[in-house]
Amino acid sequence: MTKIVVIGGSAAGPKTAARARRLDEHAEITIIQKSPDLSMASCGYPYFVGGFFDDRNQLLCTPTGVVRDPKFFMAAKGIVAKTSTEALSIDRERKIVTVKDLNSHCAEELSYDKLVLATGAKPRMPRVPGIDLEGITTLQSMKDADFLRKIAEEKKIKKAVIIGGGLIGIETCEALHLAGIKLTIVEMLPQLLSFLDMEMAKLVENHVRSKGANVISSNGLAEFLGENGKLTGIKLQNGIELDCELAIIAIGVIPNTDLASQAGIEIGTTGGILVNSHMQTSDPDIYAVGDCVETTQRLTGKKVLAPYGDLANLQGRVAGENIIVGNKKEFPGTIQTGICKVFDFSAGSTGLSERAAKAAGYDFETVINASPDKPGFMKGLLLVTKLVADRKTRKILGAQCVGPGDVSKQIAEWAMAILGGLTVEDMTNADLPYAPPFSLAIDHAIAAAHLMQNKLDGLMMGISATEVKQLIDSGNRPFVLDVRGSDEYEAMRLGIGEDLIPLGALRTRMKELPADKNALIVAYCKISLRGYEAARILAGHGYTNVKVMEGGIMAWPFPREK
Amino acid sequence: MTKIVVIGGSAAGPKTAARARRLDEHAEITIIQKSPDLSMASCGYPYFVGGFFDDRNQLLCTPTGVVRDPKFFMAAKGIVAKTSTEALSIDRERKIVTVKDLNSHCAEELSYDKLVLATGAKPRMPRVPGIDLEGITTLQSMKDADFLRKIAEEKKIKKAVIIGGGLIGIETCEALHLAGIKLTIVEMLPQLLSFLDMEMAKLVENHVRSKGANVISSNGLAEFLGENGKLTGIKLQNGIELDCELAIIAIGVIPNTDLASQAGIEIGTTGGILVNSHMQTSDPDIYAVGDCVETTQRLTGKKVLAPYGDLANLQGRVAGENIIVGNKKEFPGTIQTGICKVFDFSAGSTGLSERAAKAAGYDFETVINASPDKPGFMKGLLLVTKLVADRKTRKILGAQCVGPGDVSKQIAEWAMAILGGLTVEDMTNADLPYAPPFSLAIDHAIAAAHLMQNKLDGLMMGISATEVKQLIDSGNRPFVLDVRGSDEYEAMRLGIGEDLIPLGALRTRMKELPADKNALIVAYCKISLRGYEAARILAGHGYTNVKVMEGGIMAWPFPREK
Repeated sequence: MTKIVVIGGSAAGPKTAARARRLDEHAEITIIQKSPDLSMASCGYPYFVGGFFDDRNQLLCTPTGVVRDPKFFMAAKGIVAKTSTEALSIDRERKIVTVKDLNSHCAEELSYDKLVLATGAKPRMPRVPGIDLEGITTLQSMKDADFLRKIAEEKKIKKAVIIGGGLIGIETCEALHLAGIKLTIVEMLPQLLSFLDMEMAKLVENHVRSKGANVISSNGLAEFLGENGKLTGIKLQNGIELDCELAIIAIGVIPNTDLASQAGIEIGTTGGILVNSHMQTSDPDIYAVGDCVETTQRLTGKKVLAPYGDLANLQGRVAGENIIVGNKKEFPGTIQTGICKVFDFSAGSTGLSERAAKAAGYDFETVINASPDKPGFMKGLLLVTKLVADRKTRKILGAQCVGPGDVSKQIAEWAMAILGGLTVEDMTNADLPYAPPFSLAIDHAIAAAHLMQNKLDGLMMGISATEVKQLIDSGNRPFVLDVRGSDEYEAMRLGIGEDLIPLGALRTRMKELPADKNALIVAYCKISLRGYEAARILAGHGYTNVKVMEGGIMAWPFPREK
Repeated sequence: MTKIVVIGGSAAGPKTAARARRLDEHAEITIIQKSPDLSMASCGYPYFVGGFFDDRNQLLCTPTGVVRDPKFFMAAKGIVAKTSTEALSIDRERKIVTVKDLNSHCAEELSYDKLVLATGAKPRMPRVPGIDLEGITTLQSMKDADFLRKIAEEKKIKKAVIIGGGLIGIETCEALHLAGIKLTIVEMLPQLLSFLDMEMAKLVENHVRSKGANVISSNGLAEFLGENGKLTGIKLQNGIELDCELAIIAIGVIPNTDLASQAGIEIGTTGGILVNSHMQTSDPDIYAVGDCVETTQRLTGKKVLAPYGDLANLQGRVAGENIIVGNKKEFPGTIQTGICKVFDFSAGSTGLSERAAKAAGYDFETVINASPDKPGFMKGLLLVTKLVADRKTRKILGAQCVGPGDVSKQIAEWAMAILGGLTVEDMTNADLPYAPPFSLAIDHAIAAAHLMQNKLDGLMMGISATEVKQLIDSGNRPFVLDVRGSDEYEAMRLGIGEDLIPLGALRTRMKELPADKNALIVAYCKISLRGYEAARILAGHGYTNVKVMEGGIMAWPFPREK
């Protein structure tokens, strides 16, 4: 009878244990969990805090409402789950784990044939003065979630800061904003959501600001300020001080590898436990899964940390099977797909951003597509997608998408395209589900592929909003051509010195353009579809340097005249 | 200067013309359109009829509200569009098309260098008595849409029948139902939506019925009945008569190939115009696109008709480019991806159904997954997916999905999986965008792949609800085991003679099972996840013939006790 001990009972651990059980009804399986709760839906914490639902048990229950406690684990799965129990050490020679009951303080030795490390990750904490003040928290545990939910309900706190503008920082910002708290996100990097390229992140930042939350970027935390042991404010690295009664730390997580490294198990270069594709550590009898391991970026082949709940579950399923039947199954790694709700926007990414593609040494092309997810008559909402493709192989390398539209479907499509090794050409003729309630006749993703193909084929020269802004700011003003209708221009415009010539009048008003046919002309419209058509018309009339401002006004991240 | 004539101005024709223009500013491009309208968003007709929006111009406008009329085509695209103009004949020797202005009745000859046939399809009409009665229509033109919208608004008509339970029939049923009309769908086949397998279609039928619309299947139309030239009812092939004042015919479309065949252009075996991958007909100077052509099913390699608006646009883009730059671009065909809104459900399919896989001679496996699209605490909605995979290569062959949840994303994921040639194993570890507002930690699609892998690996024996029903009806009753909680059983149950043993009690109550460990036991729960766990437990205790009823109660298409 195989004895399996699983250290960690949040996501990857229970999944490993459950999969092992399904493959071996007679194995002796024990889960050791430090916290009092098991199988918490921890990704749901911000939505509990934000009041999307009220019953905290929903984070701890099966879909039919049964709390996943030790009794449930024993009855339904035949698994012993020891909660409030800490694993102290691993003796690999004797194949024994020493654990301590945190209530009784009694220690116990558990022998194993196979051991699973699912020790998770701990929040990274800033090393600044004042970190121990009352009013500083993370959102990483049920306890944290209960604490912040209480704050949201009590409505006493007026001002809070979020330290870190990543996924959890933004989700927590929305949650506390919904409770009427005035929020400021402080991010050390120049942008929010580092998985996005800068101009995409700026669109997210604009949306966060439009909701009344403040964003301070390129500025780190220097100190927590307090009185009588209570938080009263923060001081930033540039000296600015902000009042606040609450601070949430969300600057990422660090794999919990203490147990593993003390036992001499190999740790990878990223700081996560090293595992092979079978989720096996350097000790063949010890597997590791979830946030404590490092995994392979499938595009670059490099090791990365990818502490996501979905991958934790998939890794657990692979490990659980391999433990029982031998190393039959493989976990192939990640393409770093992620998504985040940001108030009425969503922001997602899969594969490589432009920044990541550059760092990995690819010869790549990028393009931005701004267009609705559905027809106007079905109340379509805007999506802005940035696509990255390999110039040589024409394979899709990455996609980012933000906006009020159905980002999730777009990112899923691109993730699948990358997993299938599809090229831009493959995507130009993808056969996706079309009906007006669900998409445009040419799906937003396919339209992005069309634009990318146009660029790769030399039919379109693109220029980003950022580049246009830089040209203007530096005094090298190009001829800026807005080709929308005059009614549209009256309603909304950039006001950067552009000339308005509606597309329908362009052929007859070409004399208003620069006499020098090699002069740089930047064409755009609301989403730059007409901007592209204008560029094609001008190319047909001998203009050699007409660039399309990608994504048009919808992707312009800077202030507009109106 | 290349002269291009495009016959057809609905979807594929204008797309071809626009793409050709973007690649050649100086080509002379003329669109010939029989109807008075151009570039109609014809897939939107049912939603206009149903009152999802009120301004019919939204079906005819650019996103900025400019009607796509001949003036627009000339100004914005430099394209001559002749509306209310019929193409009468093609002289391939002289490279001339004879057209007639339907208002002035004047004929004219247009010469071409390249000709594009985008002649679309016409509604298939039943050959039955009474077809000319007043009150019988299709929903294939703006005129039809205006007629039905008026009927919906007037609220005079009480009863209508839809002849045909395909996509358009169902969309029209919903539209008219919203106007308070009592609807009956009459379908000659045993099921609605023939792209679905029977048990999936039954779930859709149940939903349609739950909304108060009637469905009559396996019964064709024999005759339209009328008085004084007006429709009063229909008679079915089995003799039943139904009162109705309105009948909508939606039994599919037939490619318009008269012009092409009269000109000696080759027609394919399916009845559509034969084209190569460049969208070129048997005459190298004539291309054809959209609903009038046949295309290649990419999985089977067989020719099929796929009259969908999205493919029409993609084909147009390929043809438009090839006409100008030579045959550089290819249209690879279709995997027959489709989707349909059905009241609060959606129903979609991509690739091969079980029926299609069988017909194509595949050695395949199927599985059904019923689970929500999102966590319960984020108000997840049910999805039921049926997956078809190749046993040998383990490649995904097809997926169908129905339910109130986000079907569109699921079908998009599977379509991409098929386009990428992905296997079940690839899908078990897909890296999709996860956060609680968007999906479960294990995406519904990935969970379906897990189930399929379990079946292919011999860890799960499945049985469909239909098979269980047949066994019971035939008197070969298996031991039917519901493993839900007793509270769940009180709230909802099949009532087919099942025994209730909650999963958590199964290990201790195994003596209640058949003494013969080779007896057939059918295990299930609400979605059959616990059903699967029960089967694994019993297998571990020597039971050799435990089958999981796939999709559980949620996929049971027959009446329940409660």
